[in-house]
Amino acid sequence: MHIKDELLKYKDIIEKYLDSVLPNDDGLQNKIYEAMRYSIFAGGKRLRPFLTLKVCEIINGNYEKALPFASAIEIIHTYSLIHDDLPCMDDDDLRRGNPTNHKVFGEGMAVLAGDGLLNFAYELMISQAVKNINESDKYLKAMLEIANSSGIYGMIGGQVVDIISENTKVEENVLNFIHNHKTSALIEASIVSGGILGGADEDEINALRSYGKAIGLGFQIRDDILDKIGDIQELGKDIGSDEENNKVTYISLFGLEGAIKKSKELCKIAKKSLTMIDKAGVNILEQLADYLVYREK
Amino acid sequence: MHIKDELLKYKDIIEKYLDSVLPNDDGLQNKIYEAMRYSIFAGGKRLRPFLTLKVCEIINGNYEKALPFASAIEIIHTYSLIHDDLPCMDDDDLRRGNPTNHKVFGEGMAVLAGDGLLNFAYELMISQAVKNINESDKYLKAMLEIANSSGIYGMIGGQVVDIISENTKVEENVLNFIHNHKTSALIEASIVSGGILGGADEDEINALRSYGKAIGLGFQIRDDILDKIGDIQELGKDIGSDEENNKVTYISLFGLEGAIKKSKELCKIAKKSLTMIDKAGVNILEQLADYLVYREK
Repeated sequence: MHIKDELLKYKDIIEKYLDSVLPNDDGLQNKIYEAMRYSIFAGGKRLRPFLTLKVCEIINGNYEKALPFASAIEIIHTYSLIHDDLPCMDDDDLRRGNPTNHKVFGEGMAVLAGDGLLNFAYELMISQAVKNINESDKYLKAMLEIANSSGIYGMIGGQVVDIISENTKVEENVLNFIHNHKTSALIEASIVSGGILGGADEDEINALRSYGKAIGLGFQIRDDILDKIGDIQELGKDIGSDEENNKVTYISLFGLEGAIKKSKELCKIAKKSLTMIDKAGVNILEQLADYLVYREK
Repeated sequence: MHIKDELLKYKDIIEKYLDSVLPNDDGLQNKIYEAMRYSIFAGGKRLRPFLTLKVCEIINGNYEKALPFASAIEIIHTYSLIHDDLPCMDDDDLRRGNPTNHKVFGEGMAVLAGDGLLNFAYELMISQAVKNINESDKYLKAMLEIANSSGIYGMIGGQVVDIISENTKVEENVLNFIHNHKTSALIEASIVSGGILGGADEDEINALRSYGKAIGLGFQIRDDILDKIGDIQELGKDIGSDEENNKVTYISLFGLEGAIKKSKELCKIAKKSLTMIDKAGVNILEQLADYLVYREK
Protein backbone atom coordinates (compact mmCIF):
# COMPACT_ATOMS: atom_id res chain seq x y z
CA MET A 1 0.00 0.00 0.00
CA HIS A 2 1.20 3.51 -0.75
CA ILE A 3 2.05 5.72 2.20
CA LYS A 4 -0.59 8.32 1.29
CA ASP A 5 -3.32 5.68 1.35
CA GLU A 6 -1.97 4.28 4.62
CA LEU A 7 -2.05 7.73 6.19
CA LEU A 8 -5.64 8.24 5.04
CA LYS A 9 -6.72 4.84 6.35
CA TYR A 10 -5.30 5.50 9.83
CA LYS A 11 -6.48 9.11 9.85
CA ASP A 12 -9.99 7.74 9.61
CA ILE A 13 -9.41 5.21 12.40
CA ILE A 14 -7.91 7.87 14.68
CA GLU A 15 -10.62 10.44 14.02
CA LYS A 16 -13.37 7.92 14.75
CA TYR A 17 -11.65 6.97 17.99
CA LEU A 18 -11.14 10.61 19.01
CA ASP A 19 -14.80 11.31 18.30
CA SER A 20 -15.81 8.39 20.51
CA VAL A 21 -13.73 9.45 23.53
CA LEU A 22 -13.98 13.24 23.50
CA PRO A 23 -16.88 14.48 25.61
CA ASN A 24 -20.01 15.56 23.82
CA ASP A 25 -22.69 15.77 26.49
CA ASP A 26 -24.88 18.49 27.89
CA GLY A 27 -22.80 19.27 31.00
CA LEU A 28 -22.80 22.89 32.17
CA GLN A 29 -19.22 23.08 30.94
CA ASN A 30 -20.07 22.00 27.37
CA LYS A 31 -18.62 25.21 25.91
CA ILE A 32 -15.16 23.79 26.52
CA TYR A 33 -16.09 20.51 24.83
CA GLU A 34 -16.97 22.54 21.75
CA ALA A 35 -13.67 24.44 21.87
CA MET A 36 -11.68 21.21 22.33
CA ARG A 37 -13.46 19.46 19.47
CA TYR A 38 -13.09 22.50 17.21
CA SER A 39 -9.29 22.25 17.25
CA ILE A 40 -9.11 18.45 17.36
CA PHE A 41 -11.25 18.17 14.23
CA ALA A 42 -9.74 21.14 12.36
CA GLY A 43 -7.84 18.77 10.10
CA GLY A 44 -4.24 17.68 10.11
CA LYS A 45 -2.35 14.70 8.77
CA ARG A 46 -2.57 12.76 12.09
CA LEU A 47 1.09 11.94 11.55
CA ARG A 48 1.93 11.35 15.22
CA PRO A 49 -0.89 8.91 16.04
CA PHE A 50 -0.30 7.17 12.71
CA LEU A 51 3.27 6.52 13.81
CA THR A 52 2.22 5.10 17.18
CA LEU A 53 -0.38 2.78 15.68
CA LYS A 54 1.76 1.71 12.73
CA VAL A 55 4.86 0.96 14.80
CA CYS A 56 2.81 -1.02 17.34
CA GLU A 57 1.30 -2.98 14.45
CA ILE A 58 4.67 -3.61 12.77
CA ILE A 59 6.09 -4.97 16.02
CA ASN A 60 3.25 -7.24 17.12
CA GLY A 61 0.61 -7.46 14.43
CA ASN A 62 -2.14 -5.22 15.79
CA TYR A 63 -2.61 -1.63 16.83
CA GLU A 64 -5.76 -1.69 18.99
CA LYS A 65 -4.10 -1.37 22.39
CA ALA A 66 -2.19 1.68 21.16
CA LEU A 67 -5.32 3.66 20.22
CA PRO A 68 -5.70 5.59 23.52
CA PHE A 69 -2.00 6.44 23.48
CA ALA A 70 -1.93 7.45 19.81
CA SER A 71 -4.96 9.66 20.46
CA ALA A 72 -3.41 11.13 23.61
CA ILE A 73 -0.39 12.19 21.54
CA GLU A 74 -2.59 13.88 18.93
CA ILE A 75 -4.48 15.60 21.77
CA ILE A 76 -1.20 16.85 23.29
CA HIS A 77 -0.09 18.09 19.86
CA THR A 78 -3.40 19.93 19.44
CA TYR A 79 -3.27 21.62 22.86
CA SER A 80 0.23 22.88 22.04
CA LEU A 81 -1.03 24.43 18.79
CA ILE A 82 -3.90 26.20 20.58
CA HIS A 83 -1.55 27.74 23.15
CA ASP A 84 1.15 28.55 20.53
CA ASP A 85 -1.41 30.49 18.47
CA LEU A 86 -2.43 32.75 21.40
CA PRO A 87 -1.80 36.51 21.05
CA CYS A 88 0.79 36.33 23.86
CA MET A 89 2.70 33.63 21.93
CA ASP A 90 2.82 33.50 18.09
CA ASP A 91 -0.39 35.53 17.69
CA ASP A 92 -1.75 33.61 14.70
CA ASP A 93 -5.25 34.17 13.30
CA LEU A 94 -5.27 31.16 10.98
CA ARG A 95 -4.44 27.50 11.48
CA ARG A 96 -4.95 25.00 8.65
CA GLY A 97 -7.03 27.61 6.82
CA ASN A 98 -9.46 28.16 9.69
CA PRO A 99 -9.64 30.80 12.44
CA THR A 100 -7.53 29.79 15.43
CA ASN A 101 -9.21 28.63 18.63
CA HIS A 102 -9.01 31.95 20.48
CA LYS A 103 -10.43 33.77 17.45
CA VAL A 104 -13.57 31.64 17.72
CA PHE A 105 -13.91 31.02 21.47
CA GLY A 106 -11.97 33.89 23.04
CA GLU A 107 -8.59 33.81 24.72
CA GLY A 108 -9.72 32.60 28.15
CA MET A 109 -11.58 29.63 26.69
CA ALA A 110 -8.63 28.83 24.38
CA VAL A 111 -6.28 28.68 27.38
CA LEU A 112 -8.74 26.39 29.18
CA ALA A 113 -9.37 24.23 26.10
CA GLY A 114 -5.60 23.69 25.83
CA ASP A 115 -5.35 22.87 29.53
CA GLY A 116 -8.37 20.59 29.25
CA LEU A 117 -6.88 18.71 26.30
CA LEU A 118 -3.50 18.23 27.96
CA ASN A 119 -5.09 16.88 31.12
CA PHE A 120 -7.53 14.74 29.11
CA ALA A 121 -4.63 13.07 27.28
CA TYR A 122 -3.40 11.78 30.65
CA GLU A 123 -6.90 10.77 31.75
CA LEU A 124 -7.13 8.66 28.58
CA MET A 125 -3.76 6.94 29.04
CA ILE A 126 -4.16 6.35 32.78
CA SER A 127 -7.67 4.89 32.30
CA GLN A 128 -6.35 2.45 29.74
CA ALA A 129 -3.60 1.36 32.15
CA VAL A 130 -6.06 0.98 35.06
CA LYS A 131 -8.31 -1.18 32.88
CA ASN A 132 -5.40 -3.45 31.90
CA ILE A 133 -3.49 -3.63 35.13
CA ASN A 134 -1.69 -6.88 34.17
CA GLU A 135 0.06 -5.00 31.35
CA SER A 136 0.59 -1.79 33.33
CA ASP A 137 4.37 -2.11 32.97
CA LYS A 138 4.21 -1.37 29.21
CA TYR A 139 1.55 1.29 29.59
CA LEU A 140 3.49 3.15 32.27
CA LYS A 141 6.72 3.10 30.26
CA ALA A 142 4.91 4.42 27.17
CA MET A 143 3.27 7.11 29.32
CA LEU A 144 6.61 8.21 30.74
CA GLU A 145 8.09 8.44 27.24
CA ILE A 146 5.19 10.64 26.11
CA ALA A 147 5.16 12.76 29.29
CA ASN A 148 8.89 13.49 29.17
CA SER A 149 8.76 14.42 25.49
CA SER A 150 5.83 16.82 26.05
CA GLY A 151 7.12 18.80 29.00
CA ILE A 152 9.84 21.24 29.94
CA TYR A 153 12.54 18.75 28.93
CA GLY A 154 10.80 18.27 25.59
CA MET A 155 8.21 20.17 23.58
CA ILE A 156 7.52 22.96 26.09
CA GLY A 157 11.27 23.48 26.59
CA GLY A 158 11.59 23.96 22.82
CA GLN A 159 8.76 26.47 22.72
CA VAL A 160 10.35 28.43 25.60
CA VAL A 161 13.66 28.75 23.77
CA ASP A 162 11.85 29.58 20.52
CA ILE A 163 10.02 32.46 22.23
CA ILE A 164 13.01 33.90 24.07
CA SER A 165 15.10 33.67 20.87
CA GLU A 166 12.76 35.81 18.79
CA ASN A 167 14.44 38.93 17.42
CA THR A 168 17.86 37.66 18.48
CA LYS A 169 20.62 36.14 16.40
CA VAL A 170 20.86 32.48 17.33
CA GLU A 171 23.57 29.95 16.62
CA GLU A 172 23.16 26.46 15.19
CA ASN A 173 23.15 24.80 18.63
CA VAL A 174 20.17 26.89 19.74
CA LEU A 175 18.28 26.23 16.51
CA ASN A 176 18.95 22.51 16.93
CA PHE A 177 17.69 22.68 20.50
CA ILE A 178 14.45 24.38 19.39
CA HIS A 179 13.77 21.93 16.55
CA ASN A 180 14.77 18.82 18.49
CA HIS A 181 12.59 19.77 21.43
CA LYS A 182 9.65 21.66 19.96
CA THR A 183 8.85 19.21 17.14
CA SER A 184 11.09 16.15 17.12
CA ALA A 185 10.63 15.11 20.74
CA LEU A 186 6.92 14.30 20.42
CA ILE A 187 7.40 12.64 17.01
CA GLU A 188 10.16 10.48 18.50
CA ALA A 189 7.88 9.62 21.45
CA SER A 190 5.05 8.69 19.05
CA ILE A 191 7.32 6.14 17.45
CA VAL A 192 9.02 4.84 20.60
CA SER A 193 5.76 4.53 22.56
CA GLY A 194 4.30 2.50 19.67
CA GLY A 195 7.31 0.22 20.00
CA ILE A 196 6.95 -0.09 23.77
CA LEU A 197 3.24 -0.88 23.52
CA GLY A 198 3.94 -3.46 20.81
CA GLY A 199 6.56 -5.15 23.01
CA ALA A 200 9.67 -4.19 21.02
CA ASP A 201 13.02 -5.37 22.43
CA GLU A 202 15.82 -2.99 23.40
CA ASP A 203 17.59 -3.07 20.01
CA GLU A 204 14.34 -2.35 18.23
CA ILE A 205 13.58 0.54 20.59
CA ASN A 206 17.03 2.03 19.91
CA ALA A 207 16.53 1.73 16.15
CA LEU A 208 13.06 3.29 16.40
CA ARG A 209 14.45 6.15 18.49
CA SER A 210 17.16 6.86 15.96
CA TYR A 211 14.60 6.76 13.14
CA GLY A 212 12.30 9.05 15.13
CA LYS A 213 15.00 11.65 15.81
CA ALA A 214 15.91 11.78 12.12
CA ILE A 215 12.40 12.07 10.68
CA GLY A 216 11.37 14.47 13.45
CA LEU A 217 14.09 16.92 12.53
CA GLY A 218 13.63 16.27 8.80
CA PHE A 219 9.92 17.01 9.16
CA GLN A 220 10.63 20.33 10.90
CA ILE A 221 13.22 21.41 8.32
CA ARG A 222 10.71 20.61 5.56
CA ASP A 223 8.21 22.82 7.43
CA ASP A 224 10.74 25.66 7.38
CA ILE A 225 11.27 25.09 3.65
CA LEU A 226 7.53 25.07 2.97
CA ASP A 227 7.07 28.22 5.04
CA LYS A 228 9.58 29.85 2.74
CA ILE A 229 8.42 28.53 -0.64
CA GLY A 230 4.92 27.20 0.02
CA ASP A 231 1.68 28.62 -1.17
CA ILE A 232 -1.04 29.88 1.16
CA GLN A 233 -3.75 27.63 -0.32
CA GLU A 234 -1.56 24.58 0.06
CA LEU A 235 -0.44 25.15 3.63
CA GLY A 236 -3.46 26.93 5.08
CA LYS A 237 -1.41 29.30 7.17
CA ASP A 238 0.24 32.63 6.63
CA ILE A 239 3.26 32.22 4.41
CA GLY A 240 6.49 33.67 5.64
CA SER A 241 5.08 33.86 9.18
CA ASP A 242 8.45 32.67 10.50
CA GLU A 243 10.16 35.61 8.82
CA GLU A 244 7.45 37.96 10.07
CA ASN A 245 8.02 36.79 13.65
CA ASN A 246 11.77 37.11 13.16
CA LYS A 247 12.19 33.43 13.88
CA VAL A 248 15.41 31.76 13.03
CA THR A 249 15.05 28.69 10.78
CA TYR A 250 17.42 26.32 9.00
CA ILE A 251 16.98 28.51 5.94
CA SER A 252 18.03 31.72 7.68
CA LEU A 253 21.15 29.92 8.92
CA PHE A 254 22.09 27.73 5.93
CA GLY A 255 20.01 29.02 3.03
CA LEU A 256 17.35 27.08 1.10
CA GLU A 257 19.86 24.75 -0.57
CA GLY A 258 21.56 23.96 2.72
CA ALA A 259 18.22 23.16 4.36
CA ILE A 260 17.19 20.84 1.51
CA LYS A 261 20.56 19.05 1.69
CA LYS A 262 20.22 18.59 5.46
CA SER A 263 16.71 17.16 5.17
CA LYS A 264 17.87 14.64 2.56
CA GLU A 265 20.72 13.51 4.81
CA LEU A 266 18.24 12.98 7.67
CA CYS A 267 16.04 10.89 5.38
CA LYS A 268 19.01 8.61 4.69
CA ILE A 269 19.85 8.28 8.39
CA ALA A 270 16.22 7.41 9.14
CA LYS A 271 16.13 4.67 6.52
CA LYS A 272 19.44 3.23 7.69
CA SER A 273 18.09 2.94 11.27
CA LEU A 274 15.25 0.80 9.99
CA THR A 275 17.63 -1.89 8.72
CA MET A 276 17.97 -2.96 12.39
CA ILE A 277 14.30 -3.94 12.53
CA ASP A 278 13.58 -7.34 11.05
CA LYS A 279 9.81 -7.18 10.68
CA ALA A 280 7.45 -7.42 7.74
CA GLY A 281 5.83 -4.07 7.06
CA VAL A 282 8.76 -1.94 8.14
CA ASN A 283 9.09 -0.65 4.56
CA ILE A 284 6.10 1.62 5.14
CA LEU A 285 8.31 3.61 7.55
CA GLU A 286 10.89 4.00 4.75
CA GLN A 287 8.20 5.36 2.47
CA LEU A 288 7.13 7.71 5.23
CA ALA A 289 10.65 9.13 5.57
CA ASP A 290 10.66 9.99 1.85
CA TYR A 291 7.15 11.39 2.06
CA LEU A 292 7.93 13.70 4.97
CA VAL A 293 11.06 15.10 3.37
CA TYR A 294 9.55 15.66 -0.08
CA ARG A 295 5.97 16.61 0.86
CA GLU A 296 4.44 19.76 -0.58
CA LYS A 297 2.21 20.57 2.42
CA MET B 1 -0.27 18.15 68.16
CA HIS B 2 -2.27 21.21 67.18
CA ILE B 3 -3.41 21.43 63.57
CA LYS B 4 -1.48 24.65 62.91
CA ASP B 5 1.78 23.02 64.01
CA GLU B 6 0.99 19.94 61.93
CA LEU B 7 0.36 22.10 58.87
CA LEU B 8 3.68 23.88 59.40
CA LYS B 9 5.58 20.63 59.87
CA TYR B 10 4.26 19.15 56.61
CA LYS B 11 4.60 22.45 54.74
CA ASP B 12 8.31 22.20 55.40
CA ILE B 13 8.47 18.57 54.26
CA ILE B 14 6.55 19.36 51.07
CA GLU B 15 8.57 22.45 50.21
CA LYS B 16 11.87 20.60 50.66
CA TYR B 17 10.60 17.81 48.42
CA LEU B 18 9.34 20.26 45.77
CA ASP B 19 12.69 22.02 45.81
CA SER B 20 14.47 18.71 45.27
CA VAL B 21 12.39 17.63 42.26
CA LEU B 22 11.77 20.89 40.40
CA PRO B 23 14.45 21.55 37.77
CA ASN B 24 17.14 24.02 38.61
CA ASP B 25 19.85 23.48 36.02
CA ASP B 26 21.46 25.59 33.31
CA GLY B 27 19.44 24.25 30.36
CA LEU B 28 18.70 26.73 27.57
CA GLN B 29 15.09 26.69 28.76
CA ASN B 30 15.95 27.72 32.33
CA LYS B 31 13.74 30.82 32.11
CA ILE B 32 10.73 28.55 32.51
CA TYR B 33 12.29 26.84 35.53
CA GLU B 34 12.49 30.26 37.16
CA ALA B 35 8.86 31.05 36.32
CA MET B 36 7.67 27.67 37.64
CA ARG B 37 9.63 28.00 40.87
CA TYR B 38 8.44 31.58 41.35
CA SER B 39 4.82 30.50 41.68
CA ILE B 40 5.51 27.21 43.45
CA PHE B 41 7.46 29.00 46.18
CA ALA B 42 5.20 32.07 46.43
CA GLY B 43 3.76 30.77 49.69
CA GLY B 44 0.51 29.03 50.44
CA LYS B 45 -0.75 26.76 53.17
CA ARG B 46 0.09 23.55 51.22
CA LEU B 47 -3.31 22.28 52.32
CA ARG B 48 -3.79 19.80 49.48
CA PRO B 49 -0.44 17.98 49.79
CA PHE B 50 -0.81 18.02 53.59
CA LEU B 51 -4.08 16.13 53.17
CA THR B 52 -2.53 13.51 50.88
CA LEU B 53 0.44 12.88 53.18
CA LYS B 54 -1.59 12.95 56.38
CA VAL B 55 -4.31 10.60 55.14
CA CYS B 56 -1.72 8.16 53.78
CA GLU B 57 0.01 8.26 57.17
CA ILE B 58 -3.22 7.80 59.13
CA ILE B 59 -4.10 4.74 57.06
CA ASN B 60 -0.77 2.94 57.05
CA GLY B 61 1.69 4.66 59.35
CA ASN B 62 3.95 6.50 56.90
CA TYR B 63 3.65 9.13 54.19
CA GLU B 64 6.86 8.71 52.15
CA LYS B 65 5.39 6.94 49.16
CA ALA B 66 2.77 9.67 48.83
CA LEU B 67 5.31 12.51 48.48
CA PRO B 68 5.46 12.59 44.66
CA PHE B 69 1.66 12.50 44.50
CA ALA B 70 1.14 15.14 47.19
CA SER B 71 3.63 17.35 45.35
CA ALA B 72 1.98 16.70 41.98
CA ILE B 73 -1.32 17.92 43.44
CA GLU B 74 0.28 21.12 44.73
CA ILE B 75 1.91 21.59 41.31
CA ILE B 76 -1.47 21.17 39.57
CA HIS B 77 -3.05 23.64 42.01
CA THR B 78 -0.26 26.14 41.27
CA TYR B 79 -0.56 25.85 37.49
CA SER B 80 -4.29 26.53 37.78
CA LEU B 81 -3.62 29.72 39.77
CA ILE B 82 -1.11 30.97 37.16
CA HIS B 83 -3.60 30.47 34.33
CA ASP B 84 -6.55 31.83 36.34
CA ASP B 85 -4.63 35.05 37.02
CA LEU B 86 -3.97 35.75 33.30
CA PRO B 87 -5.44 38.92 31.80
CA CYS B 88 -7.75 36.81 29.60
CA MET B 89 -9.12 35.08 32.72
CA ASP B 90 -9.45 36.81 36.13
CA ASP B 91 -6.81 39.45 35.27
CA ASP B 92 -5.22 39.60 38.73
CA ASP B 93 -2.04 41.55 39.45
CA LEU B 94 -1.49 40.17 42.95
CA ARG B 95 -1.43 36.65 44.37
CA ARG B 96 -0.54 36.07 48.02
CA GLY B 97 0.75 39.62 48.19
CA ASN B 98 3.19 39.22 45.29
CA PRO B 99 2.96 40.14 41.61
CA THR B 100 1.29 37.35 39.63
CA ASN B 101 3.38 35.16 37.34
CA HIS B 102 2.54 36.99 34.10
CA LYS B 103 3.34 40.35 35.75
CA VAL B 104 6.88 39.12 36.38
CA PHE B 105 7.58 36.82 33.41
CA GLY B 106 5.15 38.04 30.75
CA GLU B 107 1.97 36.37 29.53
CA GLY B 108 3.56 33.94 27.08
CA MET B 109 5.93 32.58 29.71
CA ALA B 110 3.11 32.37 32.27
CA VAL B 111 1.03 30.25 29.89
CA LEU B 112 4.05 27.99 29.31
CA ALA B 113 4.97 27.84 33.01
CA GLY B 114 1.42 26.67 33.73
CA ASP B 115 1.57 24.08 30.95
CA GLY B 116 5.01 22.99 32.12
CA LEU B 117 3.81 22.53 35.71
CA LEU B 118 0.73 20.54 34.71
CA ASN B 119 2.77 18.22 32.53
CA PHE B 120 5.50 17.96 35.19
CA ALA B 121 2.95 16.80 37.76
CA TYR B 122 2.24 13.78 35.56
CA GLU B 123 5.94 13.19 34.89
CA LEU B 124 6.45 13.02 38.65
CA MET B 125 3.60 10.58 39.31
CA ILE B 126 4.34 8.35 36.33
CA SER B 127 8.06 8.16 37.24
CA GLN B 128 7.17 7.05 40.75
CA ALA B 129 4.89 4.32 39.38
CA VAL B 130 7.53 3.14 36.88
CA LYS B 131 10.09 2.91 39.69
CA ASN B 132 7.70 0.82 41.85
CA ILE B 133 6.10 -1.36 39.26
CA ASN B 134 5.02 -4.02 41.78
CA GLU B 135 2.72 -1.43 43.41
CA SER B 136 1.60 0.15 40.14
CA ASP B 137 -2.02 -0.79 40.83
CA LYS B 138 -2.25 1.70 43.71
CA TYR B 139 -0.25 4.36 41.93
CA LEU B 140 -2.38 4.17 38.80
CA LYS B 141 -5.64 4.38 40.76
CA ALA B 142 -4.37 7.42 42.69
CA MET B 143 -3.25 9.01 39.41
CA LEU B 144 -6.66 8.48 37.83
CA GLU B 145 -8.37 10.05 40.85
CA ILE B 146 -6.12 13.11 40.57
CA ALA B 147 -6.37 13.33 36.76
CA ASN B 148 -10.17 13.17 36.73
CA SER B 149 -10.47 15.79 39.46
CA SER B 150 -8.15 18.20 37.61
CA GLY B 151 -9.66 18.13 34.14
CA ILE B 152 -12.81 19.07 32.28
CA TYR B 153 -14.93 16.89 34.57
CA GLY B 154 -13.32 18.52 37.61
CA MET B 155 -11.36 21.71 38.25
CA ILE B 156 -11.16 22.95 34.65
CA GLY B 157 -14.88 22.30 34.19
CA GLY B 158 -15.55 24.48 37.25
CA GLN B 159 -13.38 27.29 35.92
CA VAL B 160 -15.18 27.16 32.56
CA VAL B 161 -18.58 27.58 34.18
CA ASP B 162 -17.20 30.29 36.48
CA ILE B 163 -15.96 32.28 33.48
CA ILE B 164 -19.08 31.91 31.34
CA SER B 165 -21.26 32.83 34.35
CA GLU B 166 -19.58 36.19 34.96
CA ASN B 167 -22.00 39.09 34.73
CA THR B 168 -24.98 36.73 34.64
CA LYS B 169 -27.46 35.87 37.36
CA VAL B 170 -26.81 32.27 38.37
CA GLU B 171 -28.92 29.86 40.38
CA GLU B 172 -27.83 27.74 43.31
CA ASN B 173 -27.23 24.63 41.14
CA VAL B 174 -24.74 26.53 38.96
CA LEU B 175 -22.96 27.98 42.00
CA ASN B 176 -22.74 24.49 43.50
CA PHE B 177 -21.33 23.17 40.24
CA ILE B 178 -18.64 25.88 40.18
CA HIS B 179 -17.61 25.36 43.81
CA ASN B 180 -17.76 21.57 43.71
CA HIS B 181 -15.65 21.42 40.56
CA LYS B 182 -13.33 24.40 40.75
CA THR B 183 -12.18 23.90 44.34
CA SER B 184 -13.65 20.83 46.01
CA ALA B 185 -12.74 18.28 43.35
CA LEU B 186 -8.98 18.60 43.81
CA ILE B 187 -9.29 18.77 47.63
CA GLU B 188 -11.38 15.59 47.56
CA ALA B 189 -8.79 13.94 45.28
CA SER B 190 -5.99 14.98 47.65
CA ILE B 191 -7.71 13.09 50.44
CA VAL B 192 -8.88 10.06 48.45
CA SER B 193 -5.52 9.59 46.69
CA GLY B 194 -3.82 9.64 50.11
CA GLY B 195 -6.21 6.87 51.14
CA ILE B 196 -5.56 4.82 47.99
CA LEU B 197 -1.78 5.13 48.38
CA GLY B 198 -2.04 4.15 52.04
CA GLY B 199 -4.08 1.05 51.12
CA ALA B 200 -7.44 2.11 52.57
CA ASP B 201 -10.35 -0.32 52.11
CA GLU B 202 -13.54 0.58 50.26
CA ASP B 203 -15.45 1.77 53.35
CA GLU B 204 -12.56 3.99 54.35
CA ILE B 205 -12.33 5.43 50.82
CA ASN B 206 -16.06 6.23 50.89
CA ALA B 207 -15.75 7.94 54.27
CA LEU B 208 -12.71 9.91 53.08
CA ARG B 209 -14.57 10.96 49.94
CA SER B 210 -17.53 12.20 51.95
CA TYR B 211 -15.17 14.09 54.31
CA GLY B 212 -13.35 15.56 51.29
CA LYS B 213 -16.50 16.80 49.59
CA ALA B 214 -17.65 18.52 52.79
CA ILE B 215 -14.40 20.26 53.69
CA GLY B 216 -13.76 21.15 50.04
CA LEU B 217 -17.02 23.06 49.80
CA GLY B 218 -16.65 24.44 53.33
CA PHE B 219 -13.18 25.73 52.42
CA GLN B 220 -14.52 27.50 49.32
CA ILE B 221 -17.42 29.09 51.17
CA ARG B 222 -14.99 30.34 53.82
CA ASP B 223 -12.94 31.84 50.96
CA ASP B 224 -16.03 33.69 49.74
CA ILE B 225 -16.64 34.93 53.30
CA LEU B 226 -13.05 36.09 53.67
CA ASP B 227 -13.17 37.83 50.30
CA LYS B 228 -16.13 39.78 51.66
CA ILE B 229 -14.89 40.58 55.14
CA GLY B 230 -11.15 39.93 55.03
CA ASP B 231 -8.37 42.42 55.16
CA ILE B 232 -5.86 42.93 52.35
CA GLN B 233 -2.82 42.38 54.61
CA GLU B 234 -4.27 39.15 55.91
CA LEU B 235 -5.27 37.60 52.62
CA GLY B 236 -2.68 39.08 50.28
CA LYS B 237 -5.07 39.59 47.43
CA ASP B 238 -7.45 42.31 46.36
CA ILE B 239 -10.44 42.39 48.68
CA GLY B 240 -13.82 42.25 47.11
CA SER B 241 -12.30 41.00 43.85
CA ASP B 242 -15.22 38.61 43.45
CA GLU B 243 -17.65 41.50 43.58
CA GLU B 244 -15.47 43.48 41.19
CA ASN B 245 -15.53 40.62 38.68
CA ASN B 246 -19.29 40.26 39.17
CA LYS B 247 -18.80 36.72 40.37
CA VAL B 248 -21.60 34.98 42.14
CA THR B 249 -20.71 33.60 45.57
CA TYR B 250 -22.58 31.94 48.43
CA ILE B 251 -22.86 35.38 49.95
CA SER B 252 -24.48 36.98 46.94
CA LEU B 253 -27.06 34.17 46.92
CA PHE B 254 -27.65 33.60 50.68
CA GLY B 255 -26.08 36.57 52.45
CA LEU B 256 -23.18 36.50 54.91
CA GLU B 257 -25.19 34.78 57.65
CA GLY B 258 -26.46 32.11 55.29
CA ALA B 259 -22.95 31.39 54.07
CA ILE B 260 -21.60 31.08 57.62
CA LYS B 261 -24.44 28.72 58.55
CA LYS B 262 -23.80 26.55 55.48
CA SER B 263 -20.07 26.30 56.22
CA LYS B 264 -20.80 25.19 59.82
CA GLU B 265 -23.17 22.47 58.58
CA LEU B 266 -20.47 21.20 56.22
CA CYS B 267 -18.00 21.06 59.08
CA LYS B 268 -20.41 18.81 61.01
CA ILE B 269 -20.91 16.52 58.00
CA ALA B 270 -17.16 16.25 57.56
CA LYS B 271 -16.61 15.24 61.18
CA LYS B 272 -19.43 12.70 61.06
CA SER B 273 -17.84 11.02 58.02
CA LEU B 274 -14.67 10.49 60.02
CA THR B 275 -16.45 8.31 62.58
CA MET B 276 -16.33 5.53 59.94
CA ILE B 277 -12.53 5.47 60.08
CA ASP B 278 -11.14 3.51 63.00
CA LYS B 279 -7.53 4.67 63.01
CA ALA B 280 -5.36 6.44 65.54
CA GLY B 281 -4.58 9.95 64.42
CA VAL B 282 -7.84 10.56 62.60
CA ASN B 283 -8.67 13.33 65.08
CA ILE B 284 -6.24 15.62 63.28
CA LEU B 285 -8.69 15.61 60.34
CA GLU B 286 -11.44 16.72 62.73
CA GLN B 287 -9.28 19.61 63.88
CA LEU B 288 -8.61 20.47 60.25
CA ALA B 289 -12.34 20.70 59.47
CA ASP B 290 -12.75 23.25 62.27
CA TYR B 291 -9.65 25.12 61.21
CA LEU B 292 -10.76 25.46 57.57
CA VAL B 293 -14.21 26.72 58.45
CA TYR B 294 -13.08 29.23 61.08
CA ARG B 295 -9.75 30.36 59.57
CA GLU B 296 -9.06 34.06 59.18
CA LYS B 297 -6.88 33.77 56.05
